[in-house]
Amino acid sequence: MTPLNNSEWFTEVYREAVEKQDSQPIAALSLKTAKKLHEETTPFQKIEIFETPFWGKILIMDGCVMLTERDNFVYHEMLSHPALFAHPNPENVVIVGGGDCGTIREVLKHTSVKQAVQVEIDERVTRLCEQYFPELCTSNSDPRAQFVFQDAIEWFKSCPTHSQDVIMIDSTDPVGPAAPLFQQDFYGHCIKALKNDGIFVQQSESPFFNLNILQSLRKDMKKAGFTDVQTLLFPQPTYPSGCWSVTLARKADHFSTVREKNIETHYYNTGIHSQAKNLPEFLKNALT
Amino acid sequence: MTPLNNSEWFTEVYREAVEKQDSQPIAALSLKTAKKLHEETTPFQKIEIFETPFWGKILIMDGCVMLTERDNFVYHEMLSHPALFAHPNPENVVIVGGGDCGTIREVLKHTSVKQAVQVEIDERVTRLCEQYFPELCTSNSDPRAQFVFQDAIEWFKSCPTHSQDVIMIDSTDPVGPAAPLFQQDFYGHCIKALKNDGIFVQQSESPFFNLNILQSLRKDMKKAGFTDVQTLLFPQPTYPSGCWSVTLARKADHFSTVREKNIETHYYNTGIHSQAKNLPEFLKNALT
Repeated sequence: MTPLNNSEWFTEVYREAVEKQDSQPIAALSLKTAKKLHEETTPFQKIEIFETPFWGKILIMDGCVMLTERDNFVYHEMLSHPALFAHPNPENVVIVGGGDCGTIREVLKHTSVKQAVQVEIDERVTRLCEQYFPELCTSNSDPRAQFVFQDAIEWFKSCPTHSQDVIMIDSTDPVGPAAPLFQQDFYGHCIKALKNDGIFVQQSESPFFNLNILQSLRKDMKKAGFTDVQTLLFPQPTYPSGCWSVTLARKADHFSTVREKNIETHYYNTGIHSQAKNLPEFLKNALT
Repeated sequence: MTPLNNSEWFTEVYREAVEKQDSQPIAALSLKTAKKLHEETTPFQKIEIFETPFWGKILIMDGCVMLTERDNFVYHEMLSHPALFAHPNPENVVIVGGGDCGTIREVLKHTSVKQAVQVEIDERVTRLCEQYFPELCTSNSDPRAQFVFQDAIEWFKSCPTHSQDVIMIDSTDPVGPAAPLFQQDFYGHCIKALKNDGIFVQQSESPFFNLNILQSLRKDMKKAGFTDVQTLLFPQPTYPSGCWSVTLARKADHFSTVREKNIETHYYNTGIHSQAKNLPEFLKNALT
């Protein structure tokens, strides 16, 4: 019935509980490929890169689509710009994960930013993206960019308190090494590292497939001491369900004003940002 | 590599041009199924119904997912409520297509509506949905509901001018019998049938996969004489790209106020509606 069981397709199977690899499959997305460009297994994960006729090059980690050249702009812009434009003057930014360098590229569009540190556990992700996705890495030689290849939990232990304006968690799903990044203890480290007007933002999975994860991380953020939590939705065609979310949190005070956009973007704008807090009924009820 | 090539999965292949069945495949969505409940070929299309463990029952027409029990609420609410709440007092409503009866159910939640006519070309769709999706058909015995099984183009020829408040096009993709529903001539018939403060709304495909269709139908709407056109986006996990759109058009005047929601919904609310007009940058530029 399907033509997908062959080498011309990459297929990602979506499971009912992303955190349990033996849970029931519910759906699968297949992307038509032209050629496998690279495959390697690092100490942290299996990385594959394919050329595709529609999506451009695609990056796969442990069997999950991390990005495609065609649609990554939505994710990278929605992870970075809402937090940065909600902050009055972001100067010091930390990105946890983000090894493909697409997030730091967006962050460095902001002229207020004086330093952006990318703390990625797996250096091979960044090296491969420099080779295969150079358009994501155009800011890697910016003197404001700093690259650290280390476990973020360790890195935060030596991060000075009250030193950061914005912390962004650009991680894989809450499975394996990324699991602690979705928990109260880690949020506590981030709160210490943030200045008082600091903002935290995390990719927070699909509201259609992983509502339990979204509910749990919001609860943990509040328990850790964040004073306001805001989930924004956006389309991401190659992520599970095609609808993805980021969740922002403030160390003190509440989310209110959004500065006017003053950079070039392909998805984000001030209207999108201001409106994104209006959640659909089923989420307003689920995320109280 | 994939487990999808067997009877446990339903797979829909997405092509670069939905209107050309020989165009290149770009992606595919597979839904895990438990059992095929029904299959028949009508004079208009092949209809399949499956039971699935995650999505509930799913309705397939000519190989395309029409709806799943789990996520159809988004589509049906976003096709019906924005047009109805943008209208000051909708009394007479026509639904073109909509054979699964989910749209007429939403329309009849509005107490102002005195008559809703569903003009579906294929009576078998409605009869099968009454049998397999009874929760979509709960308003079918409402005395305000009228069911006509006829080609909508023919039906509009005998529809009195200035008789309708809202016309909704709840059709399949612009291929085969549905193709004329996306063209200027048909929009002209609808404009004649609408009262002066009438509103037209049409499902308008994926902005990520079918931007050309969206651009073309908006252009045709304006050429036909609609005075204002507004495209709203929403997530729809089981439709191509996971992001879908409806496009509203006014016979006269411009879209401005939205009446407060006074019915129970699962996705739609006034905030979602008011905000939905803020399109992402790449669409603002593409849909000028």
